[in-house]
Amino acid sequence: MSVEAPLAVAGYFAGRPISLITFLIIPLAMKRIGIADTTFARVDMARAAIRVIKNEASAEIIRYTVPGIKDLPVAAKKLMDEEKCDIVMALGMPGPVEKDKMCAHEASTGLIAAQLMTNRHIIEVFVHEDEAPDERTLASLAKRRAEEHALNAVRLLYYPEMLTRLAGTGQRQGYEDAGPIESSSGGHLGH
Amino acid sequence: MSVEAPLAVAGYFAGRPISLITFLIIPLAMKRIGIADTTFARVDMARAAIRVIKNEASAEIIRYTVPGIKDLPVAAKKLMDEEKCDIVMALGMPGPVEKDKMCAHEASTGLIAAQLMTNRHIIEVFVHEDEAPDERTLASLAKRRAEEHALNAVRLLYYPEMLTRLAGTGQRQGYEDAGPIESSSGGHLGH
Amino acid sequence: MSVEAPLAVAGYFAGRPISLITFLIIPLAMKRIGIADTTFARVDMARAAIRVIKNEASAEIIRYTVPGIKDLPVAAKKLMDEEKCDIVMALGMPGPVEKDKMCAHEASTGLIAAQLMTNRHIIEVFVHEDEAPDERTLASLAKRRAEEHALNAVRLLYYPEMLTRLAGTGQRQGYEDAGPIESSSGGHLGH
Amino acid sequence: MSVEAPLAVAGYFAGRPISLITFLIIPLAMKRIGIADTTFARVDMARAAIRVIKNEASAEIIRYTVPGIKDLPVAAKKLMDEEKCDIVMALGMPGPVEKDKMCAHEASTGLIAAQLMTNRHIIEVFVHEDEAPDERTLASLAKRRAEEHALNAVRLLYYPEMLTRLAGTGQRQGYEDAGPIESSSGGHLGH
Amino acid sequence: MSVEAPLAVAGYFAGRPISLITFLIIPLAMKRIGIADTTFARVDMARAAIRVIKNEASAEIIRYTVPGIKDLPVAAKKLMDEEKCDIVMALGMPGPVEKDKMCAHEASTGLIAAQLMTNRHIIEVFVHEDEAPDERTLASLAKRRAEEHALNAVRLLYYPEMLTRLAGTGQRQGYEDAGPIESSSGGHLGH
Repeated sequence: MSVEAPLAVAGYFAGRPISLITFLIIPLAMKRIGIADTTFARVDMARAAIRVIKNEASAEIIRYTVPGIKDLPVAAKKLMDEEKCDIVMALGMPGPVEKDKMCAHEASTGLIAAQLMTNRHIIEVFVHEDEAPDERTLASLAKRRAEEHALNAVRLLYYPEMLTRLAGTGQRQGYEDAGPIESSSGGHLGH
Repeated sequence: MSVEAPLAVAGYFAGRPISLITFLIIPLAMKRIGIADTTFARVDMARAAIRVIKNEASAEIIRYTVPGIKDLPVAAKKLMDEEKCDIVMALGMPGPVEKDKMCAHEASTGLIAAQLMTNRHIIEVFVHEDEAPDERTLASLAKRRAEEHALNAVRLLYYPEMLTRLAGTGQRQGYEDAGPIESSSGGHLGH
Repeated sequence: MSVEAPLAVAGYFAGRPISLITFLIIPLAMKRIGIADTTFARVDMARAAIRVIKNEASAEIIRYTVPGIKDLPVAAKKLMDEEKCDIVMALGMPGPVEKDKMCAHEASTGLIAAQLMTNRHIIEVFVHEDEAPDERTLASLAKRRAEEHALNAVRLLYYPEMLTRLAGTGQRQGYEDAGPIESSSGGHLGH
Repeated sequence: MSVEAPLAVAGYFAGRPISLITFLIIPLAMKRIGIADTTFARVDMARAAIRVIKNEASAEIIRYTVPGIKDLPVAAKKLMDEEKCDIVMALGMPGPVEKDKMCAHEASTGLIAAQLMTNRHIIEVFVHEDEAPDERTLASLAKRRAEEHALNAVRLLYYPEMLTRLAGTGQRQGYEDAGPIESSSGGHLGH
Repeated sequence: MSVEAPLAVAGYFAGRPISLITFLIIPLAMKRIGIADTTFARVDMARAAIRVIKNEASAEIIRYTVPGIKDLPVAAKKLMDEEKCDIVMALGMPGPVEKDKMCAHEASTGLIAAQLMTNRHIIEVFVHEDEAPDERTLASLAKRRAEEHALNAVRLLYYPEMLTRLAGTGQRQGYEDAGPIESSSGGHLGH
């Protein structure tokens, strides 16, 4: 796992974790966001997610890359338990055939179990290879979904009331929002 | 998460949790009901559920909104473990395609696991987008199911014997009750 | 949950748990059998099961009714952990469509998990609404299966060697027994 | 559960567990093998398995019969936790229809969970009723599979290196072995 | 389980674990890699994996062979808990029919659960018998996938930053890599 602290201007140094000195100037209360992704995916979704997080929050970002989506549950749990992440994004791109669907199901089940064991959120960002008609559209979809779910991760961590204001309004990630139906006004608890 | 105490007349204040003073006048024995819902849903089911709970019981209501149904299991567990809820309603609206069905399955499995880990009930209120012929009917179904399951939550918490009286009588939520079949007289233990 | 002790002649009193005095004359070694059932079911399977248990054993019976089959796993676990039941019967009647089959699968998975967490048996008695050609037959099937599984619960608790004598003999609950095949003589360990 | 010790010549006595005196002459290091089976199965697979174990090893055998395959996971776990078995065989015969396949899946999932909770093996021996064209063949298949998996249980417990010698050689239980493919020579680590 | 230490020149001796003296000259910090495989598989995938690991790292290798893929989850967990492995490879070859697919699903679910319980990786290497048109191709595929995943295991243990450099680049094991799509440049966090 590599640690990328927002105050470390140099960022990565020769692929090694940032220097110890960096930690000394990080405020104690700084949140830690884990990014677990795969070498199997054909788009660097993590890069898109990290860019959004950096724009929106001053969080430490710890990235951890594993071979495939079935390796993501324990990667996310290690980010929680060993790297003390407050939330994790799990980014993956399941293949198009039946066996891949089953892999995605197994990975999702594991990600939910990992959340219940740690009492912390893992935002699953899976883009199925057959969700788009061509590779170019698929790449755009993957990046946009990663970006929009990065926003969700930031909201869950810092601004949960923003999500309540959007409750029941048909939000989608990577596609146009479906929107609310009928006269439901989404999240206002007035009475 | 936002806390909405029945004694706090002002309710929400600028989207922030209610003031500390409110808690001082809440009786110690007051039950806490968690409401977990999603921004993905297209109907504000939580509002319908909260209205019923307020009519039926003097409970504290803690609402927690997450992006989608797969985020509900840990949300419900956090409502139990961190917000000390006695029961949770998990409200969601899975999409119509095969992938959405699988998401609903994974979420349901996680909700059951969360209950076994906490020994407390989570009332799952899922309305599948393909359960109704049009959006208007879907919105009505979603609200009615949320309301009727809110009643179930209140019964489980305060009046469990009411449920035993209804045992085996074909109760449905959101639809007309199916009713009992044959001469079975539902829940009376006479002999 | 309501407690029904075999020594309490009056049984239920206005739907309330039996009086404390009843417990004083129950032998300490008396076993406790939990009955978890649903308001969704269209037949009062619990009544049929309780009748058999009372005929066969001097056990305390604790009944707990929940809305649907997905609420049964935690209900059964609460009967174990909070009501100290030695065994639980989980009675339910899944609907006929695909979504109902998935609910039954999720409930079954949860019931097995609850057993592994408590090291005690939960006898699942599910009758699928599409198992019988008409409602009358369905009701009979549901009652008979509940009765025959009540016998199994009693055997597991008091007479496990009776089950070993029936091992490999094709026992069925609610239907005619399938019977053993070939010359296998079922459970006799002679050699 | 009934205990059958290899030193008790009389074996079973009127269906009761063997006498206490038997235990006094059992060496302390004697392994314990649990046999969990069902009354649902139509063949006494346990008898076939027990015969093989007795031929191959001096182990205590503890048999525990439950109604159906979904009762096997907790039965196996109880054999581990309460009867201190070192390994368990779980014998069952799932029915031929779709609902039965789902039961088998749920039972298998539970058996794997029970193993992870105890760090001990449960050898699942399931014979699906539709695996053979007629009842006679089915009975033979069931017995042969039980026997061959009994050998596997003995190997796991006493001679694990024998399994490594067979690694990658296409072993089957109940059918002819599939055999290795290409020039792979199975388990020899030479180089 | 058999231990194969890289410093033990003689390797295996008559199929027994290596001598105790070997351990005395192993550095304390040496990593331990578990290899769990099956007698059901028709190719000795473990041999291929072990060869790669020996070329790439100075790790102790502990091999543990079980009958089938459903026995792999607890085997992997035992390698973690009892043999103190830092990572495990789980090698298997599910059969081609529907029942085999379900077995693979159950095994995968168990492998993910075992990882969450131990916070260590299990690299699942499954080759489905119907993945190749003929036995010869299947054997090659199995070996190549085992080898490429052995590399992944080494990377996870020693060089995790190498995986981050490959993030989102469409890596495949046993087949040609799918490669990245669009202009995504895989894992470089520069901006």
